[in-house]
Amino acid sequence: MTDNMAQMPTAVVLLSGGLDSYTAAAMARRDGFVLSALSFRYGQRHRMEIDAARRVARALGVERHLVLDLDLAAMGGSSLTSPDIAVPRDRPADEPGIPSTYVPARNTIFLAVALGWAEVLGAHDLVIGVNALDYSGYPDCRPAFIRAFEALARVATRAGVEGQPIRVHAPLIEMSKADIIRRGTTLGLEYGLTLSCYDPSAGGVPCGHCDSCRLRAAGFAAAGVPDPAQQAHPR
Amino acid sequence: MTDNMAQMPTAVVLLSGGLDSYTAAAMARRDGFVLSALSFRYGQRHRMEIDAARRVARALGVERHLVLDLDLAAMGGSSLTSPDIAVPRDRPADEPGIPSTYVPARNTIFLAVALGWAEVLGAHDLVIGVNALDYSGYPDCRPAFIRAFEALARVATRAGVEGQPIRVHAPLIEMSKADIIRRGTTLGLEYGLTLSCYDPSAGGVPCGHCDSCRLRAAGFAAAGVPDPAQQAHPR
Repeated sequence: MTDNMAQMPTAVVLLSGGLDSYTAAAMARRDGFVLSALSFRYGQRHRMEIDAARRVARALGVERHLVLDLDLAAMGGSSLTSPDIAVPRDRPADEPGIPSTYVPARNTIFLAVALGWAEVLGAHDLVIGVNALDYSGYPDCRPAFIRAFEALARVATRAGVEGQPIRVHAPLIEMSKADIIRRGTTLGLEYGLTLSCYDPSAGGVPCGHCDSCRLRAAGFAAAGVPDPAQQAHPR
Repeated sequence: MTDNMAQMPTAVVLLSGGLDSYTAAAMARRDGFVLSALSFRYGQRHRMEIDAARRVARALGVERHLVLDLDLAAMGGSSLTSPDIAVPRDRPADEPGIPSTYVPARNTIFLAVALGWAEVLGAHDLVIGVNALDYSGYPDCRPAFIRAFEALARVATRAGVEGQPIRVHAPLIEMSKADIIRRGTTLGLEYGLTLSCYDPSAGGVPCGHCDSCRLRAAGFAAAGVPDPAQQAHPR
């Protein structure tokens, strides 16, 4: 830690290994926060994303990176955790409803743990890379969710009781995927470190057919930037 | 499962192994819910409470009991998870502030996971045995916390988006410890199955000096009922 860092506030950032959380974390760092990164092995079938989260955490120069285990697969209910539910391929963007890749209450759970860690660290800022435009329709990616979590944090914590509100930063929430990529490119981010694909059978090579791959590809195309992860793994 | 149970709604109940969550669960069962119980090995030093939670789950006849691991001890910050912070002994009841036994955001985290499981099970009811009268001053045991969590659940979940609110039942929240014990005694609960002590060095025998032991002892005394856990383990 430099002397300078000692005077900077800490933010707890949720890092998945994908490009959104990397960009959100980099924006928080640029805004003057020292980063404590939190990732979860939650039983996701695409657990290779944890390797990506470690690469991203190193590239961001985080102060610490905590990877916690929480076996949400024991509950089932999502194609991201249950091998017996297939990850949808080439799902129409205008298909109504919440897709099977939704992991029930995942962002609520992750923010709750981040909140606990922030209390221990004396931090009052959480960062999450959710996005309500180019996303899959998950309820816990919307501005109303973020506001409700901040309201909960005010009454749930020692800091809140003592009058110090917890802020949940979701800097990408109103941005398009292309805007996110442009912003990250301006910040010099190395998107080749990230992994967005939901499909574990692709073995770390983007499958190109899951929602996450397709949103990412459309975003890079709209931003007019090549995806370095595609160049690293040409198909 | 009996034919009758098939028509009854499911509630996800948080079971710690102590007497409060046992009583809250029994009240939910009496109100017509089938119970799915959830407990956590969260790095608590008094992890013998999980054995008590299993005994209680059996006595309640729950439909399923999920015990999840989540290592909150990796974060530190509480005498319940950190061996280098002593569990307070004989703490004055009027001591101001939040004691070291507070585990940051624990109830937020546990309810968040319960919420996810409820979504998978198609349940809309969560049960938690928090109590805002005879308690240790934790922020996440107060009515305002429960209301804020319900508001969060309305926007965080598939059910909420589809117009089905999640209810968080905290039936003990305004009851004294003596009232809780009287209610449980009326319901025929076997409090000898429970373990309330925070101090792992006592080896499953109530230490008699931590907040939890003292609140329990005062509650049984005020209710005019002997504590069967004391009789099982005379000191």
